[in-house]
Amino acid sequence: MTRHSTGELTGAMNDGEADEDTRRARATLGWIAEPGDERMGRAVDDLGPVDVLSLLRRDELPDRYRPRPSYRHRLAAVDLARIQRDLERTESNELRFVCPGDSEWPTQLDALGPKRPLALWLRGTSDLRLACLRSVAIVGSRAATDYGTYIAGDLGFGLGERGWTVVSGAAYGIDAATQRGVLAAGGSTVAVLACGVDVSYPRGHEALLARIADEGAIVSELPPGAAPTRQRFLERNRVIAALTRGAVVIEAAVRSGALSTAGWARDLDRIVMGVPGPVTSTMSAGVHHLLQQEHARLVCSAADVVELVGQLGRDLAPQPRGPERVRDTLDRATLAVLEAVPGRTGGDVSVVAAAAGVDVDEALSRLGSLLLLGLVERIEGRWRLSRRTTRASPPEQTRAEQLAM
Amino acid sequence: MTRHSTGELTGAMNDGEADEDTRRARATLGWIAEPGDERMGRAVDDLGPVDVLSLLRRDELPDRYRPRPSYRHRLAAVDLARIQRDLERTESNELRFVCPGDSEWPTQLDALGPKRPLALWLRGTSDLRLACLRSVAIVGSRAATDYGTYIAGDLGFGLGERGWTVVSGAAYGIDAATQRGVLAAGGSTVAVLACGVDVSYPRGHEALLARIADEGAIVSELPPGAAPTRQRFLERNRVIAALTRGAVVIEAAVRSGALSTAGWARDLDRIVMGVPGPVTSTMSAGVHHLLQQEHARLVCSAADVVELVGQLGRDLAPQPRGPERVRDTLDRATLAVLEAVPGRTGGDVSVVAAAAGVDVDEALSRLGSLLLLGLVERIEGRWRLSRRTTRASPPEQTRAEQLAM
Repeated sequence: MTRHSTGELTGAMNDGEADEDTRRARATLGWIAEPGDERMGRAVDDLGPVDVLSLLRRDELPDRYRPRPSYRHRLAAVDLARIQRDLERTESNELRFVCPGDSEWPTQLDALGPKRPLALWLRGTSDLRLACLRSVAIVGSRAATDYGTYIAGDLGFGLGERGWTVVSGAAYGIDAATQRGVLAAGGSTVAVLACGVDVSYPRGHEALLARIADEGAIVSELPPGAAPTRQRFLERNRVIAALTRGAVVIEAAVRSGALSTAGWARDLDRIVMGVPGPVTSTMSAGVHHLLQQEHARLVCSAADVVELVGQLGRDLAPQPRGPERVRDTLDRATLAVLEAVPGRTGGDVSVVAAAAGVDVDEALSRLGSLLLLGLVERIEGRWRLSRRTTRASPPEQTRAEQLAM
Repeated sequence: MTRHSTGELTGAMNDGEADEDTRRARATLGWIAEPGDERMGRAVDDLGPVDVLSLLRRDELPDRYRPRPSYRHRLAAVDLARIQRDLERTESNELRFVCPGDSEWPTQLDALGPKRPLALWLRGTSDLRLACLRSVAIVGSRAATDYGTYIAGDLGFGLGERGWTVVSGAAYGIDAATQRGVLAAGGSTVAVLACGVDVSYPRGHEALLARIADEGAIVSELPPGAAPTRQRFLERNRVIAALTRGAVVIEAAVRSGALSTAGWARDLDRIVMGVPGPVTSTMSAGVHHLLQQEHARLVCSAADVVELVGQLGRDLAPQPRGPERVRDTLDRATLAVLEAVPGRTGGDVSVVAAAAGVDVDEALSRLGSLLLLGLVERIEGRWRLSRRTTRASPPEQTRAEQLAM
């Protein structure tokens, strides 16, 4: 994993790239504070994680941060050797540990302010920041109906096919049906857990989680091995909402956890969407209630979702990244492949590979990155520049001018 | 039928009460112009129906009204004796013929401007203006699914029970299911036809139309005996929308006639509502499309509909009538019954009758009128002042002060 600390890639809070002390301090604080702990978040933002940890050790964290009694108890019990071992697991890439300031840190999370995660543990192949640049949360009831799971699979498939990353919670019901749909389309999906990324929860989803890790990423702010709790599920929802440009709710009873994700999405100025169902179904009642609120939008299909969230750079609080910036991050080989993609008509991978002067495997891998970035689309087996990319430019502009933007 | 011409009850266009010549002229022009003919509407508004008719007879209608060639042909063919006979049928109350300026004229129709009907033919027992003061249109597909007809019946029943008049088209599918639901609740319903009010269309709904006439009203701007045409169906939709405070669409395919009623409702600043369904159902696709537009509101139940349209006097363009005005129209006996209705707790009809000093039949009949006007509610067999009536007044006000408003 390469890291760089150019101003462009740092978060709103101007975190520098995390050094080893900082990383160890953030990992340790992750054992001490619960997810979403605003007091801890404020102290770390003001003083830095290393100083907060040493102040805690000396029992000198200023009163204005109202240190919880639990901090002291947990600090006494913390297993430093275990934390060291977990961090060592990142060297083999079995796990990753991503801190604010790292190139993989999704800066959208900075919108959470003091409730921003201290750091994220990851398992999987996707680069989390890139994957979440164009991402949508899909959430819903665990006790879903056949209608709900059908819609979830269909929406997941459609978004995967369109190169959108789907973020969800890998729970039973809507979450799993959605993420299976994405995987079936060969798309990218991210599971945010309320337990350690190496914990299979729910137990019945061990195989699903393994596939998500293979094709996407599993994310948690909790340390490896941590068990889920009710409070951790609720705080997990804020991460799902913050990572994405919008949240879709498919089936939710009136007081459902899925609606808490929608509430976070609204509070974070993400687009809140819902899929309606029969008004006779209690499983759709929460969604209909949501859709009766001014800010929520009704969606029937993946195309509807993309229509709403698809404006590049929009709603990516706090730091919108326009298409130019995304292009700036491309290496020379990926840029060559992008330039080789036929504009409106599209072409298959062999056409692109030949034009770019690379082999088909290389072209496919580069196209995969470009798909995640939303610069190209794959429609019926053909690759082409994404419509949004072409549409965003004035019609008189040439391809070369577009690419030089 | 009593008529009066106080300024308060006349429409926006300041029509006086129609005299016999005017009525005969309007009836005749109804044979000459098609529904929604703006040219004719403008001429009648500017010159009055009697002068328009005599100018047409002399072939001297000014060119600025661009008289259609069809006017001359139809005038030559018009059967004056038949019109006379139709007007005579109103004397026995078999039919009614209501003109702008009449006390039964629903002034909401004035919002249609030059597309306002020249007059309305009626069959039935309800006073159209009073019935439509608190009314909602419910429309939808003829080829409705079981889901759609179930919802239509449920919504019709719920609105009927709450004292709201339901306006629809008596067509197969959603219309009929809705109006049957209203009738089952003992509620008030109005059918607006695209043919004469004495024509049973569709033929299979002869019995339904007879029941609607018994319990409510059948309305048409077309003369008795007129046959429906495609264009007449479309123009009929504007009358359905204009009569009501809002239109609910239950099941509509993407290019459905029900959506034209919703379009009229939007253009007339009525509230546009839709009942969602499974996104997998083509019969709900038009409704979902409607609900994706900013102005349309999602409703799941009669309670949702009443919540949206229930503010007395609101959205009754062009001449809102507040609750005070409605009270002003009450006769002494009805006002006595209103004053006898217990406020929040409610009471059964015998309690009301005793307090008002009338017999139970008399009390029931007066309560029926008050229900239509939205001043009282019937909940689980008990009568009480409608919540909106009580809620609308400041809490420190006494009952006596409220009634003196």
